[in-house]
Amino acid sequence: MAGPICVGIVGYGNLGRGVERALALTSDMRLVGVFTRRDPAAVRTLEADVAVRPLSALEGQGDQVDVLILCGGSKSDLPEQTPALASRFSVVDSFDTHARIPEHFAAVDAAARGAGTTAVISTGWDPGLFSLQRLYGEAILPQGETYTFWGRGLSQGHSDAIRRVPGVAAGVQYTIPSEEAVARVRAGDQPQLSTREKHTRECFVVLDDGADPDAVREAIVTMPDYFEPYDTTVRFVLAEELAREHAGAPHGGFVIRSGTTSEDAAQTMQFQLALQSNPEFTSSVLVAYARAAARLAASGHHGAMTPFDIAPGLLSPKSAEQLRAELL
Amino acid sequence: MAGPICVGIVGYGNLGRGVERALALTSDMRLVGVFTRRDPAAVRTLEADVAVRPLSALEGQGDQVDVLILCGGSKSDLPEQTPALASRFSVVDSFDTHARIPEHFAAVDAAARGAGTTAVISTGWDPGLFSLQRLYGEAILPQGETYTFWGRGLSQGHSDAIRRVPGVAAGVQYTIPSEEAVARVRAGDQPQLSTREKHTRECFVVLDDGADPDAVREAIVTMPDYFEPYDTTVRFVLAEELAREHAGAPHGGFVIRSGTTSEDAAQTMQFQLALQSNPEFTSSVLVAYARAAARLAASGHHGAMTPFDIAPGLLSPKSAEQLRAELL
Repeated sequence: MAGPICVGIVGYGNLGRGVERALALTSDMRLVGVFTRRDPAAVRTLEADVAVRPLSALEGQGDQVDVLILCGGSKSDLPEQTPALASRFSVVDSFDTHARIPEHFAAVDAAARGAGTTAVISTGWDPGLFSLQRLYGEAILPQGETYTFWGRGLSQGHSDAIRRVPGVAAGVQYTIPSEEAVARVRAGDQPQLSTREKHTRECFVVLDDGADPDAVREAIVTMPDYFEPYDTTVRFVLAEELAREHAGAPHGGFVIRSGTTSEDAAQTMQFQLALQSNPEFTSSVLVAYARAAARLAASGHHGAMTPFDIAPGLLSPKSAEQLRAELL
Repeated sequence: MAGPICVGIVGYGNLGRGVERALALTSDMRLVGVFTRRDPAAVRTLEADVAVRPLSALEGQGDQVDVLILCGGSKSDLPEQTPALASRFSVVDSFDTHARIPEHFAAVDAAARGAGTTAVISTGWDPGLFSLQRLYGEAILPQGETYTFWGRGLSQGHSDAIRRVPGVAAGVQYTIPSEEAVARVRAGDQPQLSTREKHTRECFVVLDDGADPDAVREAIVTMPDYFEPYDTTVRFVLAEELAREHAGAPHGGFVIRSGTTSEDAAQTMQFQLALQSNPEFTSSVLVAYARAAARLAASGHHGAMTPFDIAPGLLSPKSAEQLRAELL
């Protein structure tokens, strides 16, 4: 491509803000504008000179935008937006509802093939970078087991679940990998681990005035799917402490492939993320895959793709020659 | 491809033996034979029914072989063999002389393009998987530093250097990452580290009868390039201890990308390998890339490539649908 890659951001929450930041750290990509369903006048971007327009303004942007980065949620935004926008633009998203990836892929693929655009779905870190490590591990060490641990990190979905419990004024939830389970996996034991053995959950909760702590605790730890399958600790804190100590969005975790290549040879591959800002990291991954999507679109590779389909070199602003000389 | 991928092994040392083992763990690849410069009658393969033939027998194998896995050394074998064989077959190698990769790539690319074959060079783990992590880290976190640590592991090149010192009957060398340096990097300090600060070297040496230990130690620790830039410890052991405790070929190490996405957000990506058999692991990587090379050749993608050019999904025997459903 001759000039910089022109990028539009669709949706401006934590993820959209992170994309604005991440684009500013590149030298080959340019932000052409933020597109929002909200009143554009109510959106404050990090840099004051960013154009904020209603989603409908995308109509006339076909020539100005090489790729759109979709920053909506996986529950209701992306299942509609990604196929709809892929029928007019090359796009990337971080769709993360694992069980619904096949249907999302099919819908986006049909739209992108029909329109001759390129759509990369489910970037981010899980799905995304963690998926890549699961694939590399299994392909290289077919005899073995793969383990994914999440945390220590703040889970948005579980925090939301806590906040819906009657008597809870505010709260956050951390997912914590079991140290014992991790140690066994790292030692090459290839253990079979139950859900309860792999992770614990820790909740910091601010009570409503007059709420019964025992009832709140009981409601949380017995909540099906979210907390019942885990050993869950509930800690009651004051609103000030919650604001002071638990305002960030740290996360991370690891993928471990524990395999053997012969009787005597245990081989372990491990990938670990330690993130002080989960949304900013996800945004950074989105931006790297947006670069790949724009390049693939320009070279005529159309349809839906996932990180499994993207040659690593396409993520880097460096040329293939530079990459071979500097990083190989 | 209709049937299994048919693979030939060129060269049968530790790496070739590892490839034989790794192929046996796949269900979509078949070993058609070992090709050697030695007397085929002198080569003992792990499975007795493997055909061992002279290298010259490759002449008539164009129809029987989808891809050759080249298991020679980077110093003198691969610079000749890879281009020569790429002019007749699709090939993979683990060429690992970092400084000479550009010229190796150019020679192999010319041969492969001329012949319409596919050649994947510099697979393995460094170059190879570690290179991929350096690329992913830099592309996703452009603001940051990348650190590669090797070890604890047996270095073949440094062990050979010890054995050339007068007075040394036998010996091995371990490369050891500095715990302090690793801790500082993991903490997100982004330190500038000198060669001496990053790794130390530990040698286990068996002396010739009557050799002067002080002279041997001095000759080792002052050896330019190999040991002089490092803090090196030399331990003298008996031949029995060397054979008992130091017969394996463990290795590993890690690549850490320590970056920031905003003032408050330190982000760390880490990839770690802990290998009880370095050659068997490298062989396993070669086999996965051989699968990719055969598929790329079958779909008409010719020329030289590196792991940077290979979409991860091509390494797995699973279909794209399976990968999306099971691993994404």
